[in-house]
Amino acid sequence: MFNRLKNRVLTSIVPDIPSITPTPSYSIGRPLPEKFQYQRPPFLQLLTPDELKASADHNVRPIIVPRDVAILPFCAGYAECVNSGKSEWNEDQAAFSMQVLHHPSKDLPDLPYVYFGIFDGHAGTGAALASSLQFHHILHEKLVDIIELLLPTNANESPPMFPLMFHKTVSKDELIIGALESAFYDMDAVLAEDRTKYRNAGGCTSVVTLFILGKMYVANAGDSRAILAQRLSKEMIKMQADKPYSNGVKSDSDDYQIIATPFSFDHTPDTERGRILSLGKVHPDLMGGEYIAMEYAKKPMTKDLGTRILYKQGNMKGWTYKTLTKEDLKMPIVTGEGKRSRLLGTIGVTRGFGDHDLRAIGSGLLIKPFLSCHPEIIYRDLSLIISLPDDNNLDGEYGVLIMGTDGLWDVLENETVARITFETLKKYPNEKHRYTMVAQELVAKSRGRANDSGHWRLSDLKAPATVDDISVIVIPVYQYYKEFCEWEKKYFEAQQRREELRNAAISNNKAMNSAASINGDASKSNPIIDNDEDDDEDDEVEEAKEENSTERDEIDRALEKINLNDGNSEEPSESTA
Amino acid sequence: MFNRLKNRVLTSIVPDIPSITPTPSYSIGRPLPEKFQYQRPPFLQLLTPDELKASADHNVRPIIVPRDVAILPFCAGYAECVNSGKSEWNEDQAAFSMQVLHHPSKDLPDLPYVYFGIFDGHAGTGAALASSLQFHHILHEKLVDIIELLLPTNANESPPMFPLMFHKTVSKDELIIGALESAFYDMDAVLAEDRTKYRNAGGCTSVVTLFILGKMYVANAGDSRAILAQRLSKEMIKMQADKPYSNGVKSDSDDYQIIATPFSFDHTPDTERGRILSLGKVHPDLMGGEYIAMEYAKKPMTKDLGTRILYKQGNMKGWTYKTLTKEDLKMPIVTGEGKRSRLLGTIGVTRGFGDHDLRAIGSGLLIKPFLSCHPEIIYRDLSLIISLPDDNNLDGEYGVLIMGTDGLWDVLENETVARITFETLKKYPNEKHRYTMVAQELVAKSRGRANDSGHWRLSDLKAPATVDDISVIVIPVYQYYKEFCEWEKKYFEAQQRREELRNAAISNNKAMNSAASINGDASKSNPIIDNDEDDDEDDEVEEAKEENSTERDEIDRALEKINLNDGNSEEPSESTA
Repeated sequence: MFNRLKNRVLTSIVPDIPSITPTPSYSIGRPLPEKFQYQRPPFLQLLTPDELKASADHNVRPIIVPRDVAILPFCAGYAECVNSGKSEWNEDQAAFSMQVLHHPSKDLPDLPYVYFGIFDGHAGTGAALASSLQFHHILHEKLVDIIELLLPTNANESPPMFPLMFHKTVSKDELIIGALESAFYDMDAVLAEDRTKYRNAGGCTSVVTLFILGKMYVANAGDSRAILAQRLSKEMIKMQADKPYSNGVKSDSDDYQIIATPFSFDHTPDTERGRILSLGKVHPDLMGGEYIAMEYAKKPMTKDLGTRILYKQGNMKGWTYKTLTKEDLKMPIVTGEGKRSRLLGTIGVTRGFGDHDLRAIGSGLLIKPFLSCHPEIIYRDLSLIISLPDDNNLDGEYGVLIMGTDGLWDVLENETVARITFETLKKYPNEKHRYTMVAQELVAKSRGRANDSGHWRLSDLKAPATVDDISVIVIPVYQYYKEFCEWEKKYFEAQQRREELRNAAISNNKAMNSAASINGDASKSNPIIDNDEDDDEDDEVEEAKEENSTERDEIDRALEKINLNDGNSEEPSESTA
Repeated sequence: MFNRLKNRVLTSIVPDIPSITPTPSYSIGRPLPEKFQYQRPPFLQLLTPDELKASADHNVRPIIVPRDVAILPFCAGYAECVNSGKSEWNEDQAAFSMQVLHHPSKDLPDLPYVYFGIFDGHAGTGAALASSLQFHHILHEKLVDIIELLLPTNANESPPMFPLMFHKTVSKDELIIGALESAFYDMDAVLAEDRTKYRNAGGCTSVVTLFILGKMYVANAGDSRAILAQRLSKEMIKMQADKPYSNGVKSDSDDYQIIATPFSFDHTPDTERGRILSLGKVHPDLMGGEYIAMEYAKKPMTKDLGTRILYKQGNMKGWTYKTLTKEDLKMPIVTGEGKRSRLLGTIGVTRGFGDHDLRAIGSGLLIKPFLSCHPEIIYRDLSLIISLPDDNNLDGEYGVLIMGTDGLWDVLENETVARITFETLKKYPNEKHRYTMVAQELVAKSRGRANDSGHWRLSDLKAPATVDDISVIVIPVYQYYKEFCEWEKKYFEAQQRREELRNAAISNNKAMNSAASINGDASKSNPIIDNDEDDDEDDEVEEAKEENSTERDEIDRALEKINLNDGNSEEPSESTA
């Protein structure tokens, strides 16, 4: 992730920072083991050590695609390529997972979901490797926790009882976003804990996509990126005039336009300057007297002491003057701009997993908590996509999601990536491996070719290509949505059958009761009604009713009668969380 | 600002918190004096103590407008009305200022600007009063500081030298935004300093508008609000289809639609939950072990200890489960929702001036720095407004800016306020006092009438009206823009004359030199060229050139060659800072 920088800079920016293990008993004497042995993503099926070694040939930089192009869900495409020598191994990692969540009552279909993740490691391979092998397990647990609240309800069925459990509005979107957010926190916490047992794992960025319940959620921490590439007919664009399609619209050869919509935003010291300067301002202890939480329009110099200088602090959006003092000569907490910006003079990314022992060059101060694991989440409800029946353009209308590490994005614009995607799909209209071809093409374009001096150049052999690791996942969104619609149909059919059975049982029961109604409590004696579940719900209702017997004296709480969720509250089709 | 709350709540929420003066020498023995004697805005010209007293009649609640309806710039309207008894005096204040910034070279016209401000006080009248009397002086100093960087340049003139002074892009918008931001900080600092000398001033919200250089900048901290009410022909709306006019569009009787665009966002514990929970999370010391920086979907209760509960922390947008511990039974840092939300159980607003000694009810912890004085700024370039020549609808096209305290906004929706504005203007098509009539009407509508029991009700005598102080300023934006255009024309004419003089002087000089060119340095010997200014600029250029002789060893700085500003970089016509 540190391309476009000279080697001198690279080595000083990604140093082999010694592992600072908090428990000396582990670090003294014997070195700590690696948590996972280095490997490439298992779905690549690199079977021998030789294959692994060949994948990391820094001179050839082979583009690796899965042996079995149908191994990823929806025949999604994947391709990767190692860096040109900045680290021994490819520090990117990727993962996917197809899973189901079991319905607690067992008699309804399981809820399937699909996950993809890309992790760009730095200062070692450990964090990205651990994340690619562990994140989806953590996420799965979070989703299992909320399965009862997620299941769709049929209009024919009475509304579920669970909203009464809460005082505040809780939507399904917020539950899924919360699951992703807490999975990010937990993954970071796992890496923090592992420091006592395993060798320093470094850190990594993380962009993951979760397809569940007909929606697509993209969570990002760091400077990897996801975009949705769409190819829409001009007619369609006219129909959706309220959408902000004015940016990134490229005319296609025919009556279509290619659109690139960002589904993540890069977290660098430059883009996150406001958050970092604010944190430094309210919590100066974190800077240990070594840094200054200000930005200057002009570099402060000793000879200018006492003169005025334009500066910003905290969340300021404008410039204003201050008198230059000695304090201003300290190193700014954020230096540089754009991709070259650095946090505490050390690291060019401000969110991700790991780096718990990473210390600033020079001062030795901890980079955490300026470096955060909190993800930003953007989601889209695929059921709201408008599709023209006879257009045969489902990939274009639902879009193709491109997830990639910054090796890709440093050299290719979002719009260029979107254009290459649809150009390549056109060449392979029906082939199973068409998305793999897109991934391969994107990696090939950003890696370029080595010229006679061994420098990697773009196809014109002039502009420099990336020297960084590159990883790309290409996901046909419609393929997921099609599968979801089939599942949803099946689910509601099963639900209806269950309802019919239940009604039949109740009327049967009533008949029995009216025939011989000496002992009451009909429902308790009916084995078909799922008493277990109902009891749980009753408990919750009872708890909700008990809210008036407040144990703390809070004026506001007592006054407020907060919205109860209808359990199906719809968010706008596309939102940033 | 605390309407819609029962008296019991009001007294517990806005208590007479004793002044906690940091220097005991002042507070022991003799009470501190007030900084300013209580008064209403000077432009109301309430001349006698009786008039002042009458303005605060809680039973009548008279609507006060300026004696001279042309006293405000552009004949802007103003009206106010006292609360129904929650405090002795009207704690709102308002101010305006028409000023000029002098051109340093003296031979160009001064740059005029206009400022309006509204301040809603709480826990006393002092902070709002001091802000209304002092803020514009602070702002003026900030603008004087940047006058040289603000002055418009003519296309015929060579670009100004000042961008070379900076390593980073500095636009005029950023300079004006920075002036407003730092004026907010300084006003808050003045109130902090005054604590040793004057009686506790309480706190206040602040929304101010600055008209300068053909643009309108609205800066807000707190829950007062500014909206731009526009009346646009449907033809015009069609022309501007890219603008987000879908919300708030009301059909007028004819072919026009009324549009309300927010120019500020309310800062309450509810709207600022993310900022406050994040601050509590990264800086738990600020909570003194008394509060918990989490939000719960259900109220945590002792009997639920050990069970799981949905919660949010920091900037989380979703809900996730945690196990309920004793820690969760502490008071949440933010309680309640919407207008009833409270910070540390005490205050319903999260930004503004003052409150430096305000302590939380119960715990006695300081509310600062959770309470911030940082403003959010929204601005619009009026030169980009499209206007139909023969439509005679300039107020509608440029819009009328309504600034008001929450007494207004708690009872009337933005769209209702916009509708009332244009309905009233229609009744008074040419009158000088038409904007005063709008202000009066808005205050009258939100105050309502007292029913037989003495309760204030809206016009239908059913829905409750506000019991709070109400203040409204109504500004015809086009009137400012018209004056600006005239000034701009004059300015460029003067600039051209200056340029011609300069050129004449130079060619005259050249002729002199070629006639007798023994001693060089022509420009130094020319008294017409403003050497003083040029010297300054030369110094700055020299400084900029010296940037390579870096005194600190920063890898990044040395590598980066940062954008130089062209001095005229245009921002989008409407932006949030």
